[in-house]
This record gives sequence, structure tokens and C-alpha cells, in this order.
Amino acid sequence: MKKSLLALAALTAFAGAASAQSSVTLFGIVDLSAVSVKNGANSQKLLASNQLNSNRLGFRGVEDLGGGMRAGFWLEAGMDNDVGNVGGSNGLAAPAAGSTIFNRRSTVSLMGGFGEVRLGRDYTPSFWNYTVFDPFGTNGPASMLSLVSTLGSGAITLVRDNNTIGYFLPAMGGVYGQFQVAAGEGVAGQKYFGGRVGYAGGPVNVAVAYGKTAKDGGLADDYTDMNVGGSFAMGAFTLMAQYSKRDFLTRDQKTVLLGGTLALGASTLKASYVKSSGAQGTAARDFDAKLIGLGYQYDLSKRTALYASFGSLNNDGTTATGSTFTIGTGPALAGGETSRGIAIGVRHSF
Amino acid sequence: MKKSLLALAALTAFAGAASAQSSVTLFGIVDLSAVSVKNGANSQKLLASNQLNSNRLGFRGVEDLGGGMRAGFWLEAGMDNDVGNVGGSNGLAAPAAGSTIFNRRSTVSLMGGFGEVRLGRDYTPSFWNYTVFDPFGTNGPASMLSLVSTLGSGAITLVRDNNTIGYFLPAMGGVYGQFQVAAGEGVAGQKYFGGRVGYAGGPVNVAVAYGKTAKDGGLADDYTDMNVGGSFAMGAFTLMAQYSKRDFLTRDQKTVLLGGTLALGASTLKASYVKSSGAQGTAARDFDAKLIGLGYQYDLSKRTALYASFGSLNNDGTTATGSTFTIGTGPALAGGETSRGIAIGVRHSF
Amino acid sequence: MKKSLLALAALTAFAGAASAQSSVTLFGIVDLSAVSVKNGANSQKLLASNQLNSNRLGFRGVEDLGGGMRAGFWLEAGMDNDVGNVGGSNGLAAPAAGSTIFNRRSTVSLMGGFGEVRLGRDYTPSFWNYTVFDPFGTNGPASMLSLVSTLGSGAITLVRDNNTIGYFLPAMGGVYGQFQVAAGEGVAGQKYFGGRVGYAGGPVNVAVAYGKTAKDGGLADDYTDMNVGGSFAMGAFTLMAQYSKRDFLTRDQKTVLLGGTLALGASTLKASYVKSSGAQGTAARDFDAKLIGLGYQYDLSKRTALYASFGSLNNDGTTATGSTFTIGTGPALAGGETSRGIAIGVRHSF
Repeated sequence: MKKSLLALAALTAFAGAASAQSSVTLFGIVDLSAVSVKNGANSQKLLASNQLNSNRLGFRGVEDLGGGMRAGFWLEAGMDNDVGNVGGSNGLAAPAAGSTIFNRRSTVSLMGGFGEVRLGRDYTPSFWNYTVFDPFGTNGPASMLSLVSTLGSGAITLVRDNNTIGYFLPAMGGVYGQFQVAAGEGVAGQKYFGGRVGYAGGPVNVAVAYGKTAKDGGLADDYTDMNVGGSFAMGAFTLMAQYSKRDFLTRDQKTVLLGGTLALGASTLKASYVKSSGAQGTAARDFDAKLIGLGYQYDLSKRTALYASFGSLNNDGTTATGSTFTIGTGPALAGGETSRGIAIGVRHSF
Repeated sequence: MKKSLLALAALTAFAGAASAQSSVTLFGIVDLSAVSVKNGANSQKLLASNQLNSNRLGFRGVEDLGGGMRAGFWLEAGMDNDVGNVGGSNGLAAPAAGSTIFNRRSTVSLMGGFGEVRLGRDYTPSFWNYTVFDPFGTNGPASMLSLVSTLGSGAITLVRDNNTIGYFLPAMGGVYGQFQVAAGEGVAGQKYFGGRVGYAGGPVNVAVAYGKTAKDGGLADDYTDMNVGGSFAMGAFTLMAQYSKRDFLTRDQKTVLLGGTLALGASTLKASYVKSSGAQGTAARDFDAKLIGLGYQYDLSKRTALYASFGSLNNDGTTATGSTFTIGTGPALAGGETSRGIAIGVRHSF
Repeated sequence: MKKSLLALAALTAFAGAASAQSSVTLFGIVDLSAVSVKNGANSQKLLASNQLNSNRLGFRGVEDLGGGMRAGFWLEAGMDNDVGNVGGSNGLAAPAAGSTIFNRRSTVSLMGGFGEVRLGRDYTPSFWNYTVFDPFGTNGPASMLSLVSTLGSGAITLVRDNNTIGYFLPAMGGVYGQFQVAAGEGVAGQKYFGGRVGYAGGPVNVAVAYGKTAKDGGLADDYTDMNVGGSFAMGAFTLMAQYSKRDFLTRDQKTVLLGGTLALGASTLKASYVKSSGAQGTAARDFDAKLIGLGYQYDLSKRTALYASFGSLNNDGTTATGSTFTIGTGPALAGGETSRGIAIGVRHSF
């Protein structure tokens, strides 16, 4: 549940009309868990963030401009609450100025009957399918992103990008969609365009997404990212599936996911199977790998949950495609080795 | 419009007397625009912050101490929302600890009939004339600061300074004034004193300001900064003019500005002409340069505006005095070359 | 007085039941003072933070889960408002990601009849006695921490630690206590366990604390920290005393403090005497040093105070044990030399 910080020009306005008020919403998530990870013969015990949901602190607000028009802003920072860090990499080698605090999203929008125009640092359209159609929401030991590679391209657009101008379709039946371009500004792997179109209605949600990071600012070639996915609700059970493919030079990788969630009162069970394949072109190593994920979540309230997530990831290729621990470095892992991780923790949102 | 976050010791106080309440105001600006800049033969397209107003996020509050006395604090961070960065340089080569988040202002104040005593990181008095008497408020492609040099002195006091103790006159008819000293603490270009005195009444606002950055902590000489400026309102049209001069060793630079704004309902037109001159002493290059600025702003509300700003800057000297794009690096620019920039964007304040 | 930012799911909830509301509290301290410090023959004048209380900005909240259970979060950043910096070192050489903003505390908690379980970056139990039983609260020129060394061990646990899991006893008569473990995660001086048990009732408050930083991640040996202290209130006068001892390899240091505070209406007088002793093992230098502290605080309100604090520190050993100025570098100081510092300033909390 989010906080609406009442915004008042004067206290006397308090009893007045709500329409005259503007508001800023302060929101966030603190998610911390005890994590045990075993990569091949190496193991580590940690206190870690981001294992059920991504830790964050944000400020956002919407202004009614009249005539169906609205303006809004959204500032959202990531957090590593185990050490107190805020923000993180925005993909730039050296921040242009200051620190990248609002690394998750930093945007201003104009909204109306035409849809939404949004400027700033934002998620790429090609990212959303990965997380929406993953029972684990691309977080924790069973995150399907562990089996997604940007193929050594140097693209910084897998999840978000800087300098974006985006357009979102207005509500049209169940059809939704968004398109985005991003200025490269001379930084390798930053120039981008992409889009996502989907349909959500009744038990069904399906979407297709495509993104292209331009050969620009030093990137050796175009990098492309395609994903088609969907979910289907059958009572308390929701089935999820997705297929994605990334290309760069002669390298390509395909990832498929099949999974689901089962809601039982305050409890939710989650399971997923992810398989990666593909080749590095002339390089000997390949992307063959498999991930099995199991999870349990118990909601103490809408805002607070206890959870346990488990992932077992077999790297079948000659180099390691992924690890079940993706925050920071984690234990060393080699090709052919298995990574197993478990996180037991608490998530509190505000 | 700013947000007053209600501060309550207990919810039961809610219906109580307003006088017992304290408040924290959360405020900010997200300003993003598409920018096209051409410096000589080099051009670049960008998404940029700060082109109409400076992006910011802040917290401030005032406490009534009784007897006409008040205490207050002000914490204000700059933002580059195109990449999610917060804060920026405070002029120190390496921050003493942590990150410079509240780079715009970070102060505590005591206020009363005597005026205001303010401690912390703050604007220098010698800065205000530059921005108050510039139709573009020293932001965007037509910012007059593009033609202001600190003469290679190393002074970090052009806009703000660390470690300041300031005194502000109380309201006295239309006369206003402020004085400030800043501790050098061994950092070159940081030790400072300055003042500003003005009069604002009816259509007239005039002020004179002076600042001296001491030969201290490695600075090769005293650096001085003088500015006299004013504005005169004639109905919807406001005329602005200023003259400034900076000195360091045998180098000096003079800058003059003539400009104005014209308010037509929700629209505002802006224009300015800025001329810089002066010599680098024994160095061959000089500061001869001219800047023409044109702007249009359309207010969707008090808080949200669409705008376009244009600047054309001729560098007549043997080296480039300034560029129309001052955020980050921008395209390379040499002496004798022209810089042209245009920004089209949206500014949302909260 | 802290701010309770009202949290509302919808404005219509405003007139509704208080029990359905959640809240986020925004709080902070801006403390700035003019400081003059003389270390041996070297002197410096500064504007400094943290001289009466530690500057901070924080967000915290509590959610009622029903059945006597609560969940809560606490995010608290340090500030150096003289230069606008926020956050600071978390003891890690290089932050894993982003910037260490919430360096003071960054935690999530579950609370109930069983006490409190707290995860994240937090104070170590072995720290609290140092500050609770120091009339100056380990801030300013007379901070007793100036005479506390971690013996060159590399332990980062003197005040706080990362990756902690803590347990706090529930209220049991006047008995209080807490225990904590912290994951090392391969970082030297970070793996820790410790505890603190005390009794507070009537005029008496006493506690004993112990902490052990493990020989882990490159630390040459276990580092231990023990402290026993107490306070006794006699009307307006409160007497304080503590004894502490730290050990690492063959090095040890003992520190004793005797001090007190006298409340006279809006005024508070403070005085302390601190003595350090101990040896560096085979090293020639020792830890012989003495500190005398005097302070005066005048409360303009509960939130705002004027103050002056003075410390005189004699380093009797062959190297300097401590300085009266502990923020940043300060003037150079050698063994056998005296450090004298005075801070005159204002503290404003919100």
C-alpha cells in the first residue's frame, strides 16, 4: 500500500475540495533475506536484498491539468539495504554528474486521451515480458534473468535505458502497447528503439516485445532482443510461459520458460522451469543451461510477506551461463557446474 | 505549488490547533527536453535536464520558536533525470565523505526581526544578479552564464560555496541585502566573502553584488566578481539588463546583457542579447563573444509548462568562450566557431 | 518532534478510522557550527556538521499486522550539511553498487510479544554504551570516541555493521537487551557477533556490552570490544561512568569515563573526563591520553538548540591517540601534542 503525502498550499485548504489538492506519494520496499548459495564446490552465506521484490525508495505524483490532461513525475531508486546503498549503475561507466540515485526510474509524463508521453530514464519495452511472465518476477534464486545474456554486446538496455522518449497507448479494450527511442549520446550500447504490444482480458494476458540497441558509440554490431509471452489464469492457478531470443554478431541465445503460481489464501506457491540454448558463434562455449525454481510466499498483510525461494541451475555449456545469486559477485562458478541458492526472508512495502 | 507534508505528533492532533503543528515541505522540478546542438561542424541530439529550470528534489521546513523567532532547514539536490543522477559536484575534488546529494543548498537558519542567519552550503551573494536579471534564468541554450568565465582561477564560488555563514537583512521597505563568508578549510578557491544589496519596489528591481574568493589553499591570486543589474516592468513586458566584471591575476572579463520577457496569457516570450569581452593578460586569446537567445514558454498550469529555447553563440576570440550546451561535455568547439542549440521540452514542478 | 506523513490509500479514507492508516515518518537533524581546532602548533577554523548531534535525514514507518504483530522499516542517512554530502562510508572499500546513502541505519523489522527481529545495516550492540553513557553522546570536540581505537585491526564494527540479523528482548520490567550476528561475506572486519544487556529503572541505567569481530576475510586476528557503563540521576544532575576495553593480537586499550550533565531550565551543562591507556604490543607507542570536555546547550525549543562544546585532549603517548576534531582530516597532530577544539553552533531537528 502506497502513501499519499497530502500536499496543501495552506492548512485551511484541508477541509476544502480534494480537486484543488496535489499530492506526492512516497513509496518503497525493504526486502531482506538470509541467503545460502552453492556454486560448484564454493558456497557462501549472506544477508541480501531483492530476493522476493526489488528494494526501492521512490517519490511520484500526478497533477490534473484539466480537460482530461494530466502531468506526472516518477523518481525511484534501488536499494541494497543490507549495506545501506541506494541507487546503482545506470549503465554509464562514469556518471556524468553526481550519483545515480534514481536508477530504477526517473521520468516526467504528459497523459491524456491520446495515451502517455514519457521522458527520462525508464524500463525498456523489451524488458517487461521477462518479468511479467516469470512466476518469480525476475528476482531471487529462481529469477529467469539468470539465464539471459546480452551476449557480450555491451548493450545496457536489457532492463532500462537512459535518455528515453516513450509513448504508451491509451486504454483500448484489453489492448496495450508502448514504444520507445533512446538517444545514444555517444555512449556504447545506449542508443535504442523498441516496442511492446499485448492483450489482457479475462484470464488471458499475452504480449510480444522487440528491442534493438544500435551499433553506435562503439558497439560492434546491432543487438536485438525479442520476447513473446503470456499467462492464463485458471482459478487460483496461473500458468505462465515465454520464449525469447537475443542476437549479436554471429552469437544468439534462446530462452524458454514454463511456470505458474498457485494462490491458497495467504499462501502462494510458485514453480518454474527455464531452459537456455544457443551458441557464441566461433567461440567454443554455448548457452546450454537449465533452471528449476520453487517458491513459497506467506502474506502477513498486503504489505508484508515472509518467503522462501529456491533455485537450481545447471550450466551444461563449457562456460557458466548463470548463477542463482545475481546480486554482487557471489561464489566463483565455472562451466559445467551447478548453482543452487535459497533465500528465506521478509519483504515489507510502504 | 509545493507540498506541505503534515507533521503530527499524533493523529489525534489532527483536528487540533494548526499552531502546534510543524511541517516538512517536499518539493522538486523534473524538466526534460529534446536538445539539438551544433558546435562548429559537430552536432549532437540529446535528451537533457535543466533547460527551462534546474531539476531538483528538496526537503525544507520552518519551526516557529515564539517571540517572532523561527528556525528552518533547507535541503535541495540537483537532478539529471535523463540518467537518474542526483546531486553533483560541490567543487571539492573528492567529497570528504559520502556523496554530494544536496549540492544546490544544504542549510540551517535562525530567523527573526533581526533578519536571518544561515549556515551551510548555499548560493553566493555574487551569483544572484546573474540569474535574476537573465530572461532565461541562467538555464538552457540561451543561459547568459555560457559567457561567464572564472578565468581559470579555480574559484568554486561562481554559483554556490561550501562552509558558508550568511546574514540576510530583514524586510526594510523595498531594500534587501545579504552578506556571506565561507571557510576555506584548505581547499583552493573556496574561501570567500561577498554581499548583495538591492531595492525592489513597484516596477523596479535593482541590485549590486560583489564577491571575493581569497588567494588561499593554493589559489594563485584573489578572484573577484562584480555585477550590477536591474529589471523594469512595463505592463506585460519586463526589461532586464546587467553588467558584470571578473578579475584574476592580469585577466579580466566583462559581460553585458540586455533582454526582456513578454507575458501573453499562458504564453511567455523571452529574448536576450549578451556580449562578453576582455583579455587573458599575456595569453593571446580573448573573451570576445556574443549570444542571442529566444524562448517561448506555454504554461499548462502553474506547475507544468511546455517550452522551446534557442541560443546562437558566436565565439569571436581565438579560443571558445562558451557553448549553448553546458550540461556535460557536448560537441567539441573551437575559437571562432558558432554554437547553436535548441531545446524543446516539458517542465513539471511539485 | 518527528513528522508523521499521513499515508492514505485514498483521500476518502481521510475521515475514516485511524487504524486503517499507515504512516511514513520523515525525520532529520541539521547541526552546523563554527569550529576552531588547535592540534599542537597547527590550527584551523571550519564550518562543521555533527558537533552536538549527528546530522541525518531519514524515513521510517510501522505497520500494524494485527495479533500484536508489527512490521517496520528504518532508513537513515548521515549528512555533512556544510558541503551538502549525504551518507558516507559503510566500511566497505568500494560500495557493491550505488552509493552508501543510508549509512546510519537501513533495516526491516518484525515486532511482537517475542521482541523484535531486525535485518539490515544497523548499530552494533557493543557500540551503544559508548554513546549512551557519554555526556556528549560521542559528538563534538569532547566526544569520548576520540580516545577509542580499533587498534589497527581493520574491524569496521565499532559503531555499525552491514548484513546484520539482530534480536531485541521485549519489555521485561526494566531489563533490556539485544544480540546480533553479521555475515562477513568475505570482507575483512565485517563478520561479527555481540550483545548488550542492561537495566533501566528509576534513576538508574546500567548496561554491559560485548562484541567480537571475527578473524575472517583477511583480518589478522579476532578483535574484541567490551564496555560496562551506567548513569545515575540525582534530580537535575545525572552522573555517568563507563569502562571499556578492546583487544587485537597483542594490542589492547582501556578507556574510562566519568562525567555528568546538569539541567537548569532550558540550559544544560555538561562535563566529562576520559582517560585512555594500553599498549600496542611490541610497538613502542602506547595509548596514554586524557580528554577533558565542557559543554553548554540552550534549548530554543524541543527541536532547536544553541550550543558550545569544548574539548582539551592530551596525547601522552609517543603517537597521537586522538584529536578533538574527528570529522574529515583536521590539522596534523603528533604524539605528545595537545588537541584543543571548540564548536559553537545550532542544531535543528525535524
